[in-house]
Amino acid sequence: MTEPTTTPPDMLWSGWGDPEQATTLPDAVLALLAQGLGVTEPRPARSLRDVRLPDSTLPAEAHERLKAAVGDDNVRDDAETRVLHTRGKSTPDLLRLRAGEADDAPDAVVLPGSHDEVVAVLAACGEHRVAVVPFGGGTSVVGGLTPRRQGFAAVVALDLRRMNRLLEVDAESRTATLEPGLRGPEAEALLAEHGFTIGHHPQSFLFATIGGFAAARSSGQASAGYGRFDEVVVGLTVATPQGTIELGRAPMSAAGPDLRQLVLGSEGALGVITSVRVHVRPVPQERVYEGWRFESFVAGAAALRRLTQDGPLPTVLRLSDEAETAINLARPTEVGQSGAGGCLAIAGYEGTPEDVAARRAGADAVLRECGGEPLGTEPGEAWVHGRYKGPYLRDALLDAGALVETLETTTFWSGLQGLYDGVTGALRDALTEQGTAPVVLCHMSHVYPTGASLYFTVAAAQLDDPVAQWWKAKTAANEAILAAGGSITHHHGVGTDHREWLAREIGPLGVDALRAVKSQWDPGGIMNPGVLVE
Amino acid sequence: MTEPTTTPPDMLWSGWGDPEQATTLPDAVLALLAQGLGVTEPRPARSLRDVRLPDSTLPAEAHERLKAAVGDDNVRDDAETRVLHTRGKSTPDLLRLRAGEADDAPDAVVLPGSHDEVVAVLAACGEHRVAVVPFGGGTSVVGGLTPRRQGFAAVVALDLRRMNRLLEVDAESRTATLEPGLRGPEAEALLAEHGFTIGHHPQSFLFATIGGFAAARSSGQASAGYGRFDEVVVGLTVATPQGTIELGRAPMSAAGPDLRQLVLGSEGALGVITSVRVHVRPVPQERVYEGWRFESFVAGAAALRRLTQDGPLPTVLRLSDEAETAINLARPTEVGQSGAGGCLAIAGYEGTPEDVAARRAGADAVLRECGGEPLGTEPGEAWVHGRYKGPYLRDALLDAGALVETLETTTFWSGLQGLYDGVTGALRDALTEQGTAPVVLCHMSHVYPTGASLYFTVAAAQLDDPVAQWWKAKTAANEAILAAGGSITHHHGVGTDHREWLAREIGPLGVDALRAVKSQWDPGGIMNPGVLVE
Repeated sequence: MTEPTTTPPDMLWSGWGDPEQATTLPDAVLALLAQGLGVTEPRPARSLRDVRLPDSTLPAEAHERLKAAVGDDNVRDDAETRVLHTRGKSTPDLLRLRAGEADDAPDAVVLPGSHDEVVAVLAACGEHRVAVVPFGGGTSVVGGLTPRRQGFAAVVALDLRRMNRLLEVDAESRTATLEPGLRGPEAEALLAEHGFTIGHHPQSFLFATIGGFAAARSSGQASAGYGRFDEVVVGLTVATPQGTIELGRAPMSAAGPDLRQLVLGSEGALGVITSVRVHVRPVPQERVYEGWRFESFVAGAAALRRLTQDGPLPTVLRLSDEAETAINLARPTEVGQSGAGGCLAIAGYEGTPEDVAARRAGADAVLRECGGEPLGTEPGEAWVHGRYKGPYLRDALLDAGALVETLETTTFWSGLQGLYDGVTGALRDALTEQGTAPVVLCHMSHVYPTGASLYFTVAAAQLDDPVAQWWKAKTAANEAILAAGGSITHHHGVGTDHREWLAREIGPLGVDALRAVKSQWDPGGIMNPGVLVE
Repeated sequence: MTEPTTTPPDMLWSGWGDPEQATTLPDAVLALLAQGLGVTEPRPARSLRDVRLPDSTLPAEAHERLKAAVGDDNVRDDAETRVLHTRGKSTPDLLRLRAGEADDAPDAVVLPGSHDEVVAVLAACGEHRVAVVPFGGGTSVVGGLTPRRQGFAAVVALDLRRMNRLLEVDAESRTATLEPGLRGPEAEALLAEHGFTIGHHPQSFLFATIGGFAAARSSGQASAGYGRFDEVVVGLTVATPQGTIELGRAPMSAAGPDLRQLVLGSEGALGVITSVRVHVRPVPQERVYEGWRFESFVAGAAALRRLTQDGPLPTVLRLSDEAETAINLARPTEVGQSGAGGCLAIAGYEGTPEDVAARRAGADAVLRECGGEPLGTEPGEAWVHGRYKGPYLRDALLDAGALVETLETTTFWSGLQGLYDGVTGALRDALTEQGTAPVVLCHMSHVYPTGASLYFTVAAAQLDDPVAQWWKAKTAANEAILAAGGSITHHHGVGTDHREWLAREIGPLGVDALRAVKSQWDPGGIMNPGVLVE
């Protein structure tokens, strides 16, 4: 058992990530915002002391029970801790907090240190009608940390940062068992001591947790090579209000439905994931990321499809559309400075030198055949360098008075163009109708032999009620996704924001199945109420 | 929409497969059986007319409703049809039928021709308290077609052979949508017209159906290259007594738990799969299968593990242990004639000539480094030639008075040796204690980066009650599997035979979850009652 030595910082209460890493916009970008979108009025966030925080409603008896379960120091209800655990990091979540509104703050934050402490916390909360929000890294962008309060005496956030151990490395089986509170870099550092990596690098990597990756079916930027997190997980331990369930006696089995796949994506609504066994691989000896230019998104998509279906498959494979390429979002530090036309693709390779060389040579030939123009490693390195920086840029844009948000979806290859057109059009129309014509950018973020995902970034000028403004656009996009046959989310998850569309995607029998399982594992309905299903 | 032109034969009522393909044992094998196992007394099957078939209890009103739903000709209750739909093809199933005992016969066999007809059949059965057994190809070897009759007016088998169309080919997405009644060869023939294959070739391939592959989480012999069937499925339509559910708007999604994985492995206990969308690939231009010899099972397993973890991965990869190699079970037509010591591995490659050449060269180097001795393509071709013939051999052995059965399990690589020792020992002890010392053979049948499956074949002399004799051995093996941390089944499924051990594998909360979903989709409990969960 190995424990990490450093504690990562809490994220900025009103924005993304490490407060030290906050960025500002170059004048050129400010000029572009003013010219292109009419963004002229800065909208700075209020300060932490101006936040309106409701009084904690946690009953004294419940408070005592929780302290008995996890220790006095590990039940916290100071204002800062509560604000730091209020909602997630969607733009509406941030807009509300930036305006000083913290109605959804948990009444306390509980930090259990072990599976047994989680079980004890759930028992205490069940008895006292306290709702429980498994907080993960707090990076939800779909309202996954905003449970329904009605019917409960109080709400507590469960922060698993104390559960940060690497429990076991099984080198022969290439698996590692991790506690859920480990953030991405901590987990990777512990595994690297054994020569292994998970290779899971979503944009939230620096702050999101292993438990959160599993609970939310996270997908990393290198999923082509390492797989999605739901493909990487081979075993799970879950604490539910009814007890513990352990799943995964083998990589694959025919022992009935795969119940791991019921826990993956359960978003804290069925229980708390207290350990995760994952497939690990040797730390790659070599990493190469290259840029390619295609005439159009259609041409680039055809190239990515061919590589994904016939190989050889790079470890990272993504493609920006014309608009995103023009605005150069692949380099958050140099946004707005691209001169190149067409569409930028990134192909990355990680592995042994021989493996990298072989796949790279094979993929190069295919990409050229498909009309790709090689741009060398410089755009690839720029992408790697900036891969986690997008959310910092959003904070700066919100400050400047822009409304900026992302959303994503997925379908089969034959439906992608319709999905792209539908969502782009819906976002454009819904914002233009409000007098704030947007810029809509898109990239293909993850690829599979049978389909791919599309990731949209939208920017417009903020109206007086930017939350309502965005919700109109988001609703239009969600309707367009369902109409085009796409899934309401490829990797952001359901939370509360997508719940209504999830219900339509899986139908009444699908919702019934989820509710039925919840009624068994969480009969009191205390787990993240209102998330996933109502 | 393409319809197949040929109707495959019904399987032999008392054994496996096409009656025309029945095999007999060479004298050398009969001598070995007598010498090695004390098998001297032939036990031929009774004839069909000696079978004791209970009268049909299907109420006249239900019969009329079913005929109204699917047409008069498609509700059948003649003796032969009922016997042909009695139980599956496990050795105990066959032993009972061979002895003329058909207590589990369905009261009628219903052949719906469409999704809507399935829905109508389920409605009629629900009203009249008639249990429904989705029959698939009838190849279950785990008691999956032997539902509980208590509490029901009658039992009908659902034979979906009329639902045998290729509904759609989406060449761009590399998917095809198939009706569930298509048997393996029919599905492949229809897809081949479009240049595609699923590549799913379990031993039951010739007779099992697309719906059955999905419902039972089937795994084919080329799963290393093409994936298990649960990995190949991207979409499903399911008719339940409560209505229809459609799943799969994208290859992968974060829209909550993956409900497809709840239907996969549901074994007809939650509903009837009425269409399956699968990932297809181009028909391989080249196929090469080679034999390799390893000093020991341990050495061969290490080589297979290395190929699976570090590549390049063959399309087919399997390894017989010393006993199976000695008895030459890889060649059912030449059983008992092997001179070679050590362990035989088969490595097969399917794809384009370049892909086959590259993977073969890479794998050859690894296998040699791991101590493998190349045996050329002859053993590989012999394996391919005999790959579907094992069950015919079993029929002949049962006739000769031997008790022969197979079972399989799986776990992570680090646990495989313990699992192998535990199961082998349990089978040997349980049969030796009964005075029938067995021969126990094993091969590694499917490989994953984190683990593999073990497939055991057992032969001994039949006692007077061979069903009870086998059940003692099977129970001992199941206990050994759970004790060693394995899964109760890698690809045969749960049925009724494994139900008790499934419950222990997934625990009470796992069983609760399955029951809860069943109570929603099948509140009357008419779907394959007693299968999967009690």
